[in-house]
Amino acid sequence: MIPEITTLPNGFTIASLAMPGVETAAVGLNANVGARHETAEQNGLAHLFEHMLFKGTASRTARRIAEEIEDVGGSLNAWTSRDMTVFHGRTLAADLPLAVDMIADLVNAPRFDADDLEREKAVVLSEIGEAFDTPDDLVFDLLQDRCYPEQAIGRPILGTPASLESLDCASLSHWRSSHYRAGNLVLAAAGRVDHDRLVRQAEALFGSIAVSTPSASEASRWVGGSIGEARKSEQMHLTLAYEGPHSRAPDYYAAQLFATALGGGMSSRLFQELREERGLAYSVSASHSPHSDSGILSLYAATRPKDAATALALARDVLAQTAATLSEAELRRAKAQLKAGLLMALEGCSGQSDWLGRSLLVFDRVVPAAEMIAEIDAATVESVRAAGAAMLTTAPAFAAVGPKADALSARAFA
Amino acid sequence: MIPEITTLPNGFTIASLAMPGVETAAVGLNANVGARHETAEQNGLAHLFEHMLFKGTASRTARRIAEEIEDVGGSLNAWTSRDMTVFHGRTLAADLPLAVDMIADLVNAPRFDADDLEREKAVVLSEIGEAFDTPDDLVFDLLQDRCYPEQAIGRPILGTPASLESLDCASLSHWRSSHYRAGNLVLAAAGRVDHDRLVRQAEALFGSIAVSTPSASEASRWVGGSIGEARKSEQMHLTLAYEGPHSRAPDYYAAQLFATALGGGMSSRLFQELREERGLAYSVSASHSPHSDSGILSLYAATRPKDAATALALARDVLAQTAATLSEAELRRAKAQLKAGLLMALEGCSGQSDWLGRSLLVFDRVVPAAEMIAEIDAATVESVRAAGAAMLTTAPAFAAVGPKADALSARAFA
Repeated sequence: MIPEITTLPNGFTIASLAMPGVETAAVGLNANVGARHETAEQNGLAHLFEHMLFKGTASRTARRIAEEIEDVGGSLNAWTSRDMTVFHGRTLAADLPLAVDMIADLVNAPRFDADDLEREKAVVLSEIGEAFDTPDDLVFDLLQDRCYPEQAIGRPILGTPASLESLDCASLSHWRSSHYRAGNLVLAAAGRVDHDRLVRQAEALFGSIAVSTPSASEASRWVGGSIGEARKSEQMHLTLAYEGPHSRAPDYYAAQLFATALGGGMSSRLFQELREERGLAYSVSASHSPHSDSGILSLYAATRPKDAATALALARDVLAQTAATLSEAELRRAKAQLKAGLLMALEGCSGQSDWLGRSLLVFDRVVPAAEMIAEIDAATVESVRAAGAAMLTTAPAFAAVGPKADALSARAFA
Repeated sequence: MIPEITTLPNGFTIASLAMPGVETAAVGLNANVGARHETAEQNGLAHLFEHMLFKGTASRTARRIAEEIEDVGGSLNAWTSRDMTVFHGRTLAADLPLAVDMIADLVNAPRFDADDLEREKAVVLSEIGEAFDTPDDLVFDLLQDRCYPEQAIGRPILGTPASLESLDCASLSHWRSSHYRAGNLVLAAAGRVDHDRLVRQAEALFGSIAVSTPSASEASRWVGGSIGEARKSEQMHLTLAYEGPHSRAPDYYAAQLFATALGGGMSSRLFQELREERGLAYSVSASHSPHSDSGILSLYAATRPKDAATALALARDVLAQTAATLSEAELRRAKAQLKAGLLMALEGCSGQSDWLGRSLLVFDRVVPAAEMIAEIDAATVESVRAAGAAMLTTAPAFAAVGPKADALSARAFA
């Protein structure tokens, strides 16, 4: 299975992978623009824009968009991250062209109406409220702010009630004309797909959109620090982070392996020490999430409030120990986990189409699974310990939500 | 792709489906026992038992269990529902026998230690705390209690701090000997799987476990009623439920189609009326969840507290309208959604192995996708309206979590 890739004269890229044995397909339009491309005044615009594309186009009402894709049992979905925005379609194989046509229509011919915008702001305010009510969502937003304070990449993707207020239809149109340009977009499909047919369709739909260079954003600046949101809750939800390598950094996979050995599964040190040995938490994990020019090694645990300080101290100890004493056996295991996880993710249509799109936006090419596996295999105990140690030299960020979380935060690094 | 099924002399069943084009496999041991088989004193035992199987066996420590499966990049996982308990393994194809061997070891030779049990109770107390902190988890537990008050099927799967206290190692051993018997268990695998090899392995591991008839549980008795948990939160999280058909009822698919048209996607009536037309909620949906002898048609929405009464009244109106006026076009769309969703779920190894196991436990055979699709296709506007109307004649259940949710609950059916 080798993906086929075609770039149109205007720079718009199309990728697809034909997968044997499947009757369905997935497609995504991946845009190299997200919350980190916003100014402070625009906070929430990338995500609000993504919502507003579903409110209607020159030829389709919002209801028709919903009905037309669901009439064939398909679905359209979208999500906004700090770095990217993705419009995703999932259909039976025969209906893939419909999903492509509809995604193109959303992006090429949106109809921004002021009344629709006010109603959709109310929906996003509810979404913000739900995130606020979910401590393990909220705590990661607080953490992101401590990692990158007063920067676009540190602000919440959903925006705030205050920042949403000033956004209007002109903001939406300007966002589209600035960022939804050929050089910023990749259409990627996987499943039962015919590449030539997909390219012909994409040419007709995207062949004449404006050329551009990729959207730029302010370089991230890691700061660190701590914050606590006091709340009456059963558990203390706490996170700790250090700066890690970005997506294309040479030690990216070493950092991934470190995070896996630290808290990637039930054999990981954090799971064994905090949950199995001590019974301090049900949820405890670590991961490394890359941005285009920075990365976040983060730990999460939910503990009884009275155990929070103990759990935090123990987690920091485990972190330092892992960087100092990670073993050959642990590295072998982390490699097996990352490699198998990769293969499993790429077996699904959506996993494949997401990877094709992301890889083309981040690396300007589709990195083959074999190459990623070779990079994982090349890591050594020394390189992974070094990646861990390097991350631990950065300024830590801490966030907590729970009873007296403010007090816990104040002495987090005391 | 036709699944192969083998039943051992003791009644233990093995099912597998070889899927082309995949390099991995999934396997589940499905046990016909869950929280609804508990007495009031045992509440939480099915789930605690599932946790405790990971604490060690005669030949493996807890750490070795974690390390051995993750050494090959695989994972073991488990979940407990009201009706079932599933132990699930996901591996590269070559490691499937290891996952099967380990799952058998967990179930056949667990080592229950009192100290481990105390630590694991602390972990489950944290899990209960996390569920309590997550309003959209809590509200469904409250709803389940109103549907089936003072019955095992209505109690929380995790148990309560009080009910966990009395559970000891003897409770765990008794649970195992009562329920983990041949007639109660199905081993199901999908992906790159060799059925004959799987059967030989299962014979060796499960061929001598005790014969039994399936575990029985108290028949469910739908009651209805309302409850509100007052909490300081941004959104009011509210649910409404009616009794629907059980898994094997003749109008099961009619109820599924009704729930889909009502709140199964973005073209559904609830999504269009509450979110698109009125901006009252971000999350709004409906679904029908079957038990073995009852079912729950439930609606969920998270709204601004001041809009909660309006949203509830509107949702009830939409419900009644859907039962009265569901159209041919809506039915066609709901059919397409259910059928495509089914095909997509069955394309993944885990989706397939889950379905094989569940189908054998619920129907005593693997119901082919074509048969389910034929049942979906056979539904008519009349049969789906009738299924909706029948559900609406049952006593409604209501639960809410949010500011003054107690007051909202008190007048929910006023």
